[in-house]
Amino acid sequence: MKRPTIADVARRAGVSKGAVSYALNGQPGVSEATRRRIQAIAREIGFNPSSAARALSGASANAVGLTLCRPARVLGIEPFFMELISGVEATLSDRGYALTLQVVADPDAEIAVYRRWWGERRVDGVLVCDLRIDDRRVPVLEELGLPAVVIGGPGHSGGLANVWSDDAAALEEAVRYLIALGHRRIARVGGLAGLLHTEIRSAAFTVICERLGVADAVSVPSDYTGEEGARATRRLLSSADRPTAVIYDNDVMAVAGLSVAQEMGIVVPTDLSIVAWDDSPLCRLVHPPLTALGRDIPAYGAHAARRLLAAIAGEPVGPYQDETARLSPRGSTAPPRRPHPG
Amino acid sequence: MKRPTIADVARRAGVSKGAVSYALNGQPGVSEATRRRIQAIAREIGFNPSSAARALSGASANAVGLTLCRPARVLGIEPFFMELISGVEATLSDRGYALTLQVVADPDAEIAVYRRWWGERRVDGVLVCDLRIDDRRVPVLEELGLPAVVIGGPGHSGGLANVWSDDAAALEEAVRYLIALGHRRIARVGGLAGLLHTEIRSAAFTVICERLGVADAVSVPSDYTGEEGARATRRLLSSADRPTAVIYDNDVMAVAGLSVAQEMGIVVPTDLSIVAWDDSPLCRLVHPPLTALGRDIPAYGAHAARRLLAAIAGEPVGPYQDETARLSPRGSTAPPRRPHPG
Repeated sequence: MKRPTIADVARRAGVSKGAVSYALNGQPGVSEATRRRIQAIAREIGFNPSSAARALSGASANAVGLTLCRPARVLGIEPFFMELISGVEATLSDRGYALTLQVVADPDAEIAVYRRWWGERRVDGVLVCDLRIDDRRVPVLEELGLPAVVIGGPGHSGGLANVWSDDAAALEEAVRYLIALGHRRIARVGGLAGLLHTEIRSAAFTVICERLGVADAVSVPSDYTGEEGARATRRLLSSADRPTAVIYDNDVMAVAGLSVAQEMGIVVPTDLSIVAWDDSPLCRLVHPPLTALGRDIPAYGAHAARRLLAAIAGEPVGPYQDETARLSPRGSTAPPRRPHPG
Repeated sequence: MKRPTIADVARRAGVSKGAVSYALNGQPGVSEATRRRIQAIAREIGFNPSSAARALSGASANAVGLTLCRPARVLGIEPFFMELISGVEATLSDRGYALTLQVVADPDAEIAVYRRWWGERRVDGVLVCDLRIDDRRVPVLEELGLPAVVIGGPGHSGGLANVWSDDAAALEEAVRYLIALGHRRIARVGGLAGLLHTEIRSAAFTVICERLGVADAVSVPSDYTGEEGARATRRLLSSADRPTAVIYDNDVMAVAGLSVAQEMGIVVPTDLSIVAWDDSPLCRLVHPPLTALGRDIPAYGAHAARRLLAAIAGEPVGPYQDETARLSPRGSTAPPRRPHPG
């Protein structure tokens, strides 16, 4: 299913590309009968009239598309996306490309946006966020032939290029550090289930804790929002054998977890250690500042953008492993007050 | 200085618009001599060859531009912009318009982006943030004839349409509330100097405090970042007659202020009341949750986008006063421990 071009319409109609352009833009130069015939053919093969002039000129859209499939309240507060966008945008504008942004409600809406963008030649390529296992967007993008770079991995991006970071290795660094401090009851508040990196982290947490002899490791699913992060934390801290350390899948939930500890009179880090991921200014905004796993997110966005521009230029682009997040210990982690006897 | 069109090039060259398009797109159909002459005329009058096809078709770009002139680290953490963007974007996509985003380093870069966007017909209009007093962007946009809606006011937007909210009235509500609680030493940590709404708030704070008999009102300039908000708070709380209440110009600085109080052993709200502005999920993420001045920022973005689409359609669009922020009292405000004798 190649994107139909003005040449396809012209060939089927047996007219010149210029005549197609005149017909579809309502300009004089073709008879009414020819105009109607050309319009019918364009509709039939899915060629969008509004893109006629651009397609005629063969001009690049000089734009890259990015859809964000998260509710506004989550997008607004999580620094990750704005940091990613700032890195993407800086790289694109250096090369004269614009960034077209669209917030979508669900994967179906996102796929519809890709089809429209590509059909109307509004973008030359797209960056794909929040990669899922068995992601339905991947085969659609492959079929459309729309140049794309997936932000996420490893794997699961089909024939599309991707950039990714080793979350399992980062998580292991955090767990090893907490164990070295004396923690044995370690919990994790995870991100949205179904996202590849959530699943990778969940599986890795179980494996690492087992390997390192942490018997009481528990992973609680959540959704990246402060509300849910707080709820999960209250549940964990209300249990009989409450954890002495919690690792959160994002900064927003970690800050919410700190607030719940304060609300419950549980002192951080004496009674509870907290580790956030990703590191962001938010982690350094609170008291105590949060120990966090972090890496350069604007640079991650820049790598993705550079590889997308290469893909648009027709260069072969494969997977790219970005740096692994590093642990920055701050005031929210310490040896537990009563180290576990084990 | 009207945007040059393909018709202007054609008229000067004494050829058809089609010939101009052929010449500038490198297509056959014109002689080499004519091509060179047309190219020279296009360069001379500032007509951009890459926009030839689009201008020829008279097609709308079906896109709206938004530039953000703040460093990534500020953009990333402040929910305001993402909330504004989500409202803008939802309105635009309902009408089939895309949002083109560009982060710029300074007003000169921003003006250059506007010239390029309009010259290349990449956008049909722009939304202008962070209105300044004597804003250099306003006369440039008026001169270009690029449809624009300024987000900010009242006034200072020249002949451009704007949407704005009454910050002075909102600030008065907060100050009156703090006085009713018994506070007499009230401080304010302001946003970036030079921005119109910062100046309006600073002037209003002085006037309101004088009128309401708050002798010890002090306004400290800052820059919206957590670092500077923390620094300003440390200075205020280290002074001999430290304030019993502080109003912050954004949520990020307010959260930083709360952390400084915790770091200094000053209990919020018993020893210090904190008011944040704008309200956001960040304010409800911390403990105690912050009393805040808030309004519906996605709706504000939607109003701006709707008015821009009207301006693009050639309808007359004037100023629009959005709702005034309302105070949501939460756990960060209370009567001061030792009410001022005055």
